[in-house]
Amino acid sequence: MAEDIADGFELDARLAGDCLILGKLDCSLLLLMNNALVPWFILVPVTQATEIYQMPEEQQAQLLEEINLLSDFINSEFSIEKLNVAAIGNIVKQLHLHIVGRHSSDFCWPGVVWGAEQSEPYSDAEIKRIKESLKIRLKGRIKMN
Amino acid sequence: MAEDIADGFELDARLAGDCLILGKLDCSLLLLMNNALVPWFILVPVTQATEIYQMPEEQQAQLLEEINLLSDFINSEFSIEKLNVAAIGNIVKQLHLHIVGRHSSDFCWPGVVWGAEQSEPYSDAEIKRIKESLKIRLKGRIKMN
Repeated sequence: MAEDIADGFELDARLAGDCLILGKLDCSLLLLMNNALVPWFILVPVTQATEIYQMPEEQQAQLLEEINLLSDFINSEFSIEKLNVAAIGNIVKQLHLHIVGRHSSDFCWPGVVWGAEQSEPYSDAEIKRIKESLKIRLKGRIKMN
Repeated sequence: MAEDIADGFELDARLAGDCLILGKLDCSLLLLMNNALVPWFILVPVTQATEIYQMPEEQQAQLLEEINLLSDFINSEFSIEKLNVAAIGNIVKQLHLHIVGRHSSDFCWPGVVWGAEQSEPYSDAEIKRIKESLKIRLKGRIKMN
């Protein structure tokens, strides 16, 4: 499915295993970490760079704009108090940006989600609801299968 | 000292306690986490926003440019294999960006530094060296006391 959306761009196997592919924005693939305990989205810009500062300036600006778009989406759709936005990549080298909605009652607050082991997969109904919200709110910005 | 550099901008007390203030860029205060175990810099943009996407577009672009500048600096000055770049803020609400140089031999690899408790303060000589490198590499971009 990643290949259908991103014209042959190869998604890292671990990301593909842990996440659901939601669609493609101008710059990035949009993934959902399959952990319903927090709204945890991941942008994977179509690049071979492994650090943001190594991307061409124009692509960086596009990525920033997509981070903003998702930040606004998460803030509108979920009950959150804070966003955590991060490029880490110590394990998965393919550049990817975590955008995670956090709430003071969530499973690992105030700690970070990276390294926290608790997880609960989404139900089909929850995934359907998220996809429908994305279609409405990101209309014209996201290509979905 | 923060007040001298940033015209009355009030740095969060916890950041002020944990970090050394290195100087001021166009958009942000530049801090150094006082933990010599990893090169851990923090940018504090002069804003009341607590999320990046809530900052004016122009200030976001400036912040991105300063993240790039520091990323390049850390990559050039320290022996690192990966950068971790993150806005978290679950505990300290004042918007701040972590830029951390990581190496597979460092104290908490491949885990993240947030929540890892080991710490070792810098020596005066190490701080002096970092300040001198910043002065040279960020010449004209950074205002230092």
